[in-house]
Parts: sequence; C-alpha cells; structure tokens
Amino acid sequence: MALTLYHGEPAANSLKVLLGIKEKGVPFESKLMNLHKFEQHEPWFQAINPMGQVPVLIHDGMVINESTVINEYLDEAFDGPALRPADPYGRAKMRIWTKFVDEYFCPALSFIGWHHMIKNITDKLTPEEFEEKLARIPLKEQQDKWRTSAKQGYTQEQLDNWGRQVKTSVERMEKQLARTEWLVGDQFTLADVSCYAMAYAMPTRSPQLLADKPGVTRWHKAMSEREGTKAAMAMPNPVRETLEAARAGISSTLR
Amino acid sequence: MALTLYHGEPAANSLKVLLGIKEKGVPFESKLMNLHKFEQHEPWFQAINPMGQVPVLIHDGMVINESTVINEYLDEAFDGPALRPADPYGRAKMRIWTKFVDEYFCPALSFIGWHHMIKNITDKLTPEEFEEKLARIPLKEQQDKWRTSAKQGYTQEQLDNWGRQVKTSVERMEKQLARTEWLVGDQFTLADVSCYAMAYAMPTRSPQLLADKPGVTRWHKAMSEREGTKAAMAMPNPVRETLEAARAGISSTLR
Repeated sequence: MALTLYHGEPAANSLKVLLGIKEKGVPFESKLMNLHKFEQHEPWFQAINPMGQVPVLIHDGMVINESTVINEYLDEAFDGPALRPADPYGRAKMRIWTKFVDEYFCPALSFIGWHHMIKNITDKLTPEEFEEKLARIPLKEQQDKWRTSAKQGYTQEQLDNWGRQVKTSVERMEKQLARTEWLVGDQFTLADVSCYAMAYAMPTRSPQLLADKPGVTRWHKAMSEREGTKAAMAMPNPVRETLEAARAGISSTLR
Repeated sequence: MALTLYHGEPAANSLKVLLGIKEKGVPFESKLMNLHKFEQHEPWFQAINPMGQVPVLIHDGMVINESTVINEYLDEAFDGPALRPADPYGRAKMRIWTKFVDEYFCPALSFIGWHHMIKNITDKLTPEEFEEKLARIPLKEQQDKWRTSAKQGYTQEQLDNWGRQVKTSVERMEKQLARTEWLVGDQFTLADVSCYAMAYAMPTRSPQLLADKPGVTRWHKAMSEREGTKAAMAMPNPVRETLEAARAGISSTLR
C-alpha cells in the first residue's frame, strides 16, 4: 500500500487533513510543500492536481483533492478509530458542520489571513517575478485573490464583514459546545477536525474571540491535548515566520 | 415511518433533493413553500430551520437541512437504488462534484438568477413591506443579497464574472462527459443529480452554452428521460411565471 500526502504547513486545510490522517493512525509519506514559494503552482504539481492546490492524497495511484473529501475518504478506506458517527443522522449533522467550515468559516479567515500576509511574501519579488508567479496560478479566483491582496488590499468594509463571519462561526460553535462535548454530540468526529483546523490559533492570536465562550474554550483545550492534534501540529512549518509576522494584523481585524 | 420534505419549486437546490428522493423511490409528504412569497422566512418555518432556507427533510423527527447533505442522508438511510458508488474512491470523486456545485456552479447561477428575478418579486411590495420582509431574513448574507439585487442590482463586472463561472462549470462537465456516461464513470450518482439541478433549464434558456458540448448535451437528454427526473420536474411550480419573466435576462448574461 502506498499513501502519499502533499500538504503545506499545519494550518487551515492542510492541518485539516494532517489531523484526519494522524487521528486515523495511517502511515503515510509526507510531501511538504512551501506554499509561500508557490510550489503548488509549479507545472510538476499541476500534473498531479490541475487546480494547483494542496492538500492532495495519493492512495495506490488514486488522486484525491479537497481536504473535506480526503478526510471522509480516509475514514472510509482505512481501518482505525471511526472519525464519523455510525448512524446516517449523525453523519448528516457532521457534514453540515464540515460544509459550514468550507463555505463560511474558512473563506472568511482565509481572506483576512491573506490580506495581512501576502505582502510579506510578494515584497521579496520584483514586479516581473510577481506577474510570472501569478500567471502560473490555474484558478482565476485564486489569481484575483493574490492580485487584490498584494496590490491595493481589501477594503475595511470587506475585512469587517469577514471578521463578523468569523465571530458568527465561533458563536455557532459555542451554541453547540455549551450543550455537548463534541460538535456532533459525545463522539469526536471530522466536524471537530474541520473546526479546529480553523480555530487552532485563536487562543494565542485572537483570545478576545473566546473570552465569553466557555464551551469553545473547553473544547479547544480537549482538542489540543489529543495525540492526533499534537502529532499534526508537530509537522514541519516552513512558513512560521511569515505567519507570525501577520499575527498582529489578523488579531486587529478580529478584535 | 414519517418522512416530510419542505421544498420550493423544482429548480436549483429544491430540485436537487426532489431528484434524490424520487430516484431513491421513497414515499414522502411534500410541503411546497412559495419562496417568492417569503414563506421560508416565516417564524413557524424558522422554528424548523433557523436558517430560513429550504429544502429541509424531517425523518421521524430528525431535522436535516442542506440539500447536498440531505441527498447523502437519503442514500444512507433508505433502501432503494444506490445513488452513490460502492467504493470510497468513487464516493470521493462524487463528493468533489457535489462540492464544486455548492461552492462554485450554484452560487454563480444563483446570483445571476436573483439579479434578473428579484424585481418581479419586490415590485409588488411597498418599500415598507419590503423592509419588513427583509428584516425577517435570519442570515445577513441573504439579507445583503436581497437588498443589493432589489435596489441597485449587481454590476456588469460581477454579472460577467458569474457568467464566466457558469461557462467554466459547463466546460468542466464536458471534459468528463466526453469520456464517460455519467459524471463519476458508468454509474448514475448524486454528482449527476447536483449538476442537473443547476443545468436543467440550459437547453431552453441558454442553448448557446451547450452548442459545442456533445457530452453534456447527450447527458442532459439521458438525465431528462429518467423516470426520477420526470417525477421531480412534475412537482408543482407556484413561481413558474416569475422564473419565465426572468428568462431573457438570464439568457443574455449567459450569452
């Protein structure tokens, strides 16, 4: 059996799959990509994933992209602890959470992070180098995101709106976690994995978001103490410096 | 066993679940909502789904929202023809399609439809009635969408961008359907259901989109001839007139 995971640093969607694979306990070959050096847009990687995005899982030649889809695949294809409820209604509740993360929580956080981080990346490039890197991005939406963030930046109104969406996301989590141990009741599931991949840095980067959230605070601590989380967070982080440099900006948007 | 489906006319996300439930062949009680009369925002309905959105499935008291999640639930919880591949890799490929519809294809179509349709709905209201209806919408994103569409409308640049995304979606379908009978190979799945719920009206409303797409054209015909599709499309449509009135506008954006 050959299992290879192409992924970035343990944050956001790459963290989501690293958490999934470590919780499942499946041995895999890690292929770490430096996203801030645009490795995911290189022709050799686009031959693997034409979208030019990580994470990508390759299992005996079968290529799977999309972090949420990969995590359900890992749970279906391998033995190990179940990461999804055994009953259809539980799985439906889990999927409503993972979908909410993908369509609402993650995009809001991603735009905020991008806005505060991109200049640290692109300032090291000449305008010609920047355009050359940009031209290689296969998805027009991603090109637009890079160009807007690197040039004029997003407007305060846009940032405020994404900040509100992040707050709404944490409130939605609190509503559930005030009542149950995990997001889908008494079982740890991929819903927790998806949300933690977004919220992992909140206690240090945006503690104000958790100030009146005892449920999320308790859950975050329980998540952080899991062996799977520790193993995932211990994966190499080639862009830690750039992430740290963006910390104050992200924190101020999420005030 | 009690199975109730709250849904709108057979179009977009309501059509998606009507196709799923008819293909599965499960008897259900239909609760038709008139979305153009804002019934989904009524307090009695928000008591069922706080998001104020259809479709919603209630199975023996268990409430499930989100059309894509409902369709996987129907396939997992009931006997009948399998609507998903039996192997994990096939299911992963199916979920990449259903996710793509939810995050890319559907939003683009939805904004275009809204832009051309909303005035037919809101022109019948006084400004006070409009504000009153608006205030009842629980999701801020939906409020914004209604307000922007009804007042100034979206910009040509936004409409062009969504039009491009719809074209990209159809091209992506063609790339697959030029090679295989259905979107995930030789088995009809929820991937086909999700895409048809978006593309059902294309041959009549935007034939130019299918002009050089033999794969999608063949697939659309095969989809339209399925008994499940015929049964779903035969469900009552209380807003047909409003949809028809928007037809020319939508068609011109998708030229």
